[in-house]
Amino acid sequence: MKMTIITLLSDFGSFYPAQMKGVILSRLQGKARDITFVDIAHDIPPQDVLAGAFALLSTVPYFPKGTIHIAVVDPGVGTEGLGLVVESGGHIFIGPDNGLLLPAARSLGTPTAYKIRAPFAASNTFHGRDVFAPVAAQMATGQSPGSIGPRVRPRDLNFGDGKKTDGGIETTIIYVDRFGNLILNMQKLPGVDVCLKGVKLKRVRTYAEGRRIEPLITMGSHGFAEIAVNQGNAAEAFCLKAGDRIELEEI
Amino acid sequence: MKMTIITLLSDFGSFYPAQMKGVILSRLQGKARDITFVDIAHDIPPQDVLAGAFALLSTVPYFPKGTIHIAVVDPGVGTEGLGLVVESGGHIFIGPDNGLLLPAARSLGTPTAYKIRAPFAASNTFHGRDVFAPVAAQMATGQSPGSIGPRVRPRDLNFGDGKKTDGGIETTIIYVDRFGNLILNMQKLPGVDVCLKGVKLKRVRTYAEGRRIEPLITMGSHGFAEIAVNQGNAAEAFCLKAGDRIELEEI
Amino acid sequence: MKMTIITLLSDFGSFYPAQMKGVILSRLQGKARDITFVDIAHDIPPQDVLAGAFALLSTVPYFPKGTIHIAVVDPGVGTEGLGLVVESGGHIFIGPDNGLLLPAARSLGTPTAYKIRAPFAASNTFHGRDVFAPVAAQMATGQSPGSIGPRVRPRDLNFGDGKKTDGGIETTIIYVDRFGNLILNMQKLPGVDVCLKGVKLKRVRTYAEGRRIEPLITMGSHGFAEIAVNQGNAAEAFCLKAGDRIELEEI
Repeated sequence: MKMTIITLLSDFGSFYPAQMKGVILSRLQGKARDITFVDIAHDIPPQDVLAGAFALLSTVPYFPKGTIHIAVVDPGVGTEGLGLVVESGGHIFIGPDNGLLLPAARSLGTPTAYKIRAPFAASNTFHGRDVFAPVAAQMATGQSPGSIGPRVRPRDLNFGDGKKTDGGIETTIIYVDRFGNLILNMQKLPGVDVCLKGVKLKRVRTYAEGRRIEPLITMGSHGFAEIAVNQGNAAEAFCLKAGDRIELEEI
Repeated sequence: MKMTIITLLSDFGSFYPAQMKGVILSRLQGKARDITFVDIAHDIPPQDVLAGAFALLSTVPYFPKGTIHIAVVDPGVGTEGLGLVVESGGHIFIGPDNGLLLPAARSLGTPTAYKIRAPFAASNTFHGRDVFAPVAAQMATGQSPGSIGPRVRPRDLNFGDGKKTDGGIETTIIYVDRFGNLILNMQKLPGVDVCLKGVKLKRVRTYAEGRRIEPLITMGSHGFAEIAVNQGNAAEAFCLKAGDRIELEEI
Repeated sequence: MKMTIITLLSDFGSFYPAQMKGVILSRLQGKARDITFVDIAHDIPPQDVLAGAFALLSTVPYFPKGTIHIAVVDPGVGTEGLGLVVESGGHIFIGPDNGLLLPAARSLGTPTAYKIRAPFAASNTFHGRDVFAPVAAQMATGQSPGSIGPRVRPRDLNFGDGKKTDGGIETTIIYVDRFGNLILNMQKLPGVDVCLKGVKLKRVRTYAEGRRIEPLITMGSHGFAEIAVNQGNAAEAFCLKAGDRIELEEI
C-alpha cells in the first residue's frame, strides 16, 4: 500500500480542516492509498497571507519528497480563479494564487505552477474543501500536476531583510509565537547593535545567553531574526503584535 | 489491512481527546486494523450542544460510508445513561443521548439508535474515554451497533428557520467562526431585506460581492444563514457572540 | 507493515509540532513503518513543566505498550544537555532532563533513563525537532534506548498531597481545564470538609451530585483532586488560574 503524506495549513480554526480531510478520504476510498495527514497550523491569523507563507516556509523543508501540501489563507476567497498546483523539489503545493505557496516552493527548488481549471464544483465560500481537497486526492493517486490545467506564472511574495532608514532598520512582525517571541520579516541579523523602543537588544546565538528577562535578538531556527525576552514574553513587554511595523534603532 | 476512519468531536480542549485515541488504539492492538483519526473540533464552547450538533452536521457529509463518529458535548456528564450508538446512511455515531448526534445522523439517512448498556467501566467524569472509546473500538472491529444494547427512541434536536415576529425574524447565533462570521440558527435566508441593530445587511451569494467592511448576509457553505463583514469581523462589529439571541428587522 | 504509535506533547502551539512529524516521517521513509501520530497537547502553558508532566501522566496509561512519547516543555531550552530517553513499562519517553517525563514514566513501571549524546545536529533553539524527533525515528525502527547514550539518574519531579497548615491545606493549581475546573496538586481528597475563599466546597463523587452553580471538590478521572462549579466555571467564580497557590480552609 502506497503511503502519501498530506499536510494542511489554513486560517480556518476548527472543523473546516476535517471537512477537507473527509473529502480526500472519500475520494481515495478503495484506491489502496494510505494517507498520513499532518496539520501544520489552522490558527494562522485570519487572511494573513504573510504569516501563512512564513509557517509554510518554516515547515515544509522537514518533510520528505512526495509530500502534498494544501495551504489556504485567502482574503479574496471565492473570487480570483480556482488556485494553483505548484511542483517544486519533488513536493506538491495546492492553494490560492496569492503568493502564499511561493516562498516555501522556492525554498525547495524551482517551482512550476499550473492553474486549476474547471470542472470543480466551487462552493461560494470554501475553495479549500471543494477545489483543493479533490485536487489533492488526484495528486495522491499519482496524477501529474500538469494535467490539472495550463502552466502559469504564479503571483509571488517575498520576505524582506528590513528597510534601511536614517536611524536604523524598519521591519514588520510576521508572527508572534506562543512564547511571545517576535519573528521579524528579516532574514539576517542587523550588522550593528540595535534598540527597540529605546531598549537595547542583546545579540545572542541562543536564548540561554541572556540573563533572566533580558531582551534579545537572535536568528530563529526558521531563518528569520526574532526578538525575545529570556524566560519572558517580548510581545507583552514591548506591547507588539503580528502585523506591527517596528523600527530597530541603531546605537 | 482494513482501514477505519474515526472522527472525534468534543468540548474537551486538549489531552482528553488523546486519552480516547489511546483507549481505541489499545483495544485494537493486534487486530490488524488501520485507524485514521480525524479531529473535527475539540473547541466546541463548553457544554454547548447546539454548537456541537452544528459542527457535526456540517462535517459528516464529507466522510465516506463506514466512518465512525464519536461526539461528546454533555452538560449532564456522568448521569443520564451511558449514551447511544446511532446508525445512519452507513455511518456510525457514538455519543450522549441529548440530541447532539441526531441532526448529523438525520442528514445522512434514517437513524436507528441503540442504548449503550453495561458493562462499561464508567469513570465518574469521563464517558468519552471510558464508554464511547471502547464502544468505537468494538464498532471498528465490525461488531454490529445492535449488539451494544436495546433499540431506543433517541432524544432529538432541531435547528430552526428563525421565528417570525412583528417587525422581523428572531434567531440565535449558533457559532462564531475564526473570521467573526455569525452562523445563525436559520436554514434559509430571510425573504426580504433585513437590518441588524439598525444596519442594513446586503444579501449576497459570496462575500466578495460586498464592498470592503460592508455587512452581509449569505447562505454559508454549511447550509445556514450567516452574517459577515467583508474582510472584517462581524462579531466584533456588532458586539455579538455564540448563544446570543438577535432580531433581524425587516425593512 | 509494523505500526508504531508516537504521541507528542509540547508548549509549542502550532507548526513546530508539524516540523517534528516531518522529521520523523522523513527518517522513516522507505523503512516500511506505519506511524500513527497522536497529539496529546501543544497548548501546555509556556515553560510550565508541572502542567506538562500532569498532562503526560494523565494520558500515557491509555496507550498500549510500545508507544513512543515525545514531550517538550523546557524553560532552559538550548542549554543543559540533549535530553533523555526513558524506558518504563514497555513505553519509551523522549524529552528534556527536567522532570517532565518522570511522573508518567514512574506510573507505568520502573524507569530506566539514558542520556542522549551527540551526534545530533542541535539547532540553537529547537531540541524537539533536531534531537528528539530523530531519536524517536530511531526508536521506531527498533533501536534500543540503551544505544542512545549512557545510563543516567534523571532529574525527578513529584506531585504532592497538599501541605498541612494551621488552618487547612495549602496546594497549587496545576491545570485549569476548558470547563474552568481547577486541578490541584493533591492526589487525594482532604479528609475533612473545606472552604475555598470562605465558600464551602461540597465533596462529591460526580459533578452531577452538585446543584446548579454549587462549588464542588472531587477526585478527577486523572487521580488528582479538582474544584469545580457544577455547570459553571470555577476558575472564573474564584478568580484563579494555573500556577496559583491556594489554601483550603478546614471547617
